[in-house]
Amino acid sequence: MGRALPMTVREEGLPERVTIYEVGPRDGLQNEKAIVPLEVKAAFVERLVAAGLPIVEATSFVHPRWVPQLADAAELVAGLDLDGAIPLPVLVPNERGLDRAIEAGCRHIAVFASATETFAAKNLNTTLEDQFAMFEPVVRRALDQGIDVRAYVSMCFGDPWEGAVPIEQVVAVGTRLLGLGASQLSLGDTIGVGTVGHVGALVEAFGAAGVGVDRLAMHFHDTYGQALANAHAALRQGITTFDASAGGLGGCPYAESATGNLATEDLIWMLDGLGIEHGVDLDAVVATSIWMAEQLGRPSPSAVVRALT
Amino acid sequence: MGRALPMTVREEGLPERVTIYEVGPRDGLQNEKAIVPLEVKAAFVERLVAAGLPIVEATSFVHPRWVPQLADAAELVAGLDLDGAIPLPVLVPNERGLDRAIEAGCRHIAVFASATETFAAKNLNTTLEDQFAMFEPVVRRALDQGIDVRAYVSMCFGDPWEGAVPIEQVVAVGTRLLGLGASQLSLGDTIGVGTVGHVGALVEAFGAAGVGVDRLAMHFHDTYGQALANAHAALRQGITTFDASAGGLGGCPYAESATGNLATEDLIWMLDGLGIEHGVDLDAVVATSIWMAEQLGRPSPSAVVRALT
Repeated sequence: MGRALPMTVREEGLPERVTIYEVGPRDGLQNEKAIVPLEVKAAFVERLVAAGLPIVEATSFVHPRWVPQLADAAELVAGLDLDGAIPLPVLVPNERGLDRAIEAGCRHIAVFASATETFAAKNLNTTLEDQFAMFEPVVRRALDQGIDVRAYVSMCFGDPWEGAVPIEQVVAVGTRLLGLGASQLSLGDTIGVGTVGHVGALVEAFGAAGVGVDRLAMHFHDTYGQALANAHAALRQGITTFDASAGGLGGCPYAESATGNLATEDLIWMLDGLGIEHGVDLDAVVATSIWMAEQLGRPSPSAVVRALT
Repeated sequence: MGRALPMTVREEGLPERVTIYEVGPRDGLQNEKAIVPLEVKAAFVERLVAAGLPIVEATSFVHPRWVPQLADAAELVAGLDLDGAIPLPVLVPNERGLDRAIEAGCRHIAVFASATETFAAKNLNTTLEDQFAMFEPVVRRALDQGIDVRAYVSMCFGDPWEGAVPIEQVVAVGTRLLGLGASQLSLGDTIGVGTVGHVGALVEAFGAAGVGVDRLAMHFHDTYGQALANAHAALRQGITTFDASAGGLGGCPYAESATGNLATEDLIWMLDGLGIEHGVDLDAVVATSIWMAEQLGRPSPSAVVRALT
């Protein structure tokens, strides 16, 4: 007998196919305590691409002082196939980061904005309003070079300092980022507090503001165990791009096997059960996550990875 | 600033109130490697009741040879308030177990049936068909004594030996158990393979067979990370009783912090976000789970417990 499988039972009204936007090498590893060697990072990205993930965010050109885990961004991307069929975006915080990404030959970047005043101050060293002036030249110069730009909006469902974040504030930030020229918004529940009704209301509010589900991706963290339920709620709204990290990497670096991003494998299990196409080889991702857990010296937070280990 | 909270955003068409049926002391502890001292078990039940859980399954009168973890069932219930406002059901496998439960003064029991042939053979030492003859005198004698009977149906979403389990087979088993006189069916995803569409289809199939959501409870295990998403899918079908275990107790006893039952705390987080009443004090349950994790010597698998620890 092979491994366990979900029985496929479709649900009416859901998309037929979704895109899993893999963030493990970037959002996952930047939040791990361990600093992973360059060759392990490269192998991680290559294994994820080989597993069929259609897009893999490879690293971040944030200053190494802030994210020492990804200080080798330039060396990493130098060894990757940046012109291949699979986009390998990199996070770019500012113009200096963009310069480095351009120099490295990157064709896809992502900027990281804040939905709240406090996080803009603490993480971006700017204000809710001034962040747009900061991102404007980054996006414009990237587009001038034919580089695609995704925009993350962080703290969309709650903020550790401000608590609840008004939905209209998130929509306002998101639409301005699209106005700068971003092709896609990734709506992040950075602290994982959001719940299913909130997800539905946020996607609907974007729709009411003229931003369709084709411009949106959802980025859930599993801090409070809500990530997969929230992904299902977003699917019901017609969302077709989901950020996830192989093995659920990206937990708090100081808590053993704390929950990080929505695990790619747990998402795939649900999609397989729903008969929704994604093109990813689950067993290959699980094998990659088991290998990466050995590199990191801690068990994977993904339930599917644990069950199949 | 207090602890993080979900923002309350209601979703149309969901129940206004649900009952959380706490199974930690029974389904949780019977699957833990550690044998918990009697006084810890008693304190666990009492703390759960004090936290506002409206029903707490206290233990099992299964033969101690099979479940040594709960060998002290009679001593445990002797110290509990079995005639109080909060029902404290016990699992009863057969007539011998019923005799012990009656002798102990229990007012609520649960029987544990199988949706599959193989699990009936391996767990109940009977057949899919013969299990009803086994349960018939148990249910009848209990009802004669004014004892309420819940019936678990295990392996409703998949079976480790048989794989997929036909929905009509689950409905057939469930309706026969109700026919014997059980007041409620708890539909168990014993191995955690089920997904959201499957949950919806199963509840609908029971409805088509004349079994309304008021007779059904859902019992999810989080083995593949699907439990909370599945609970949301069941809520959308109108289910109002959810089995859950404080701290997500009940993982595979041989894997550290492996996932067990749907964690009571993670369910509460979602319900609070949806504005659905449940009457339970989340902080009190979290404190209980932190305390129990110390007793067990391993971290809680509940994401909410970890985030709030």
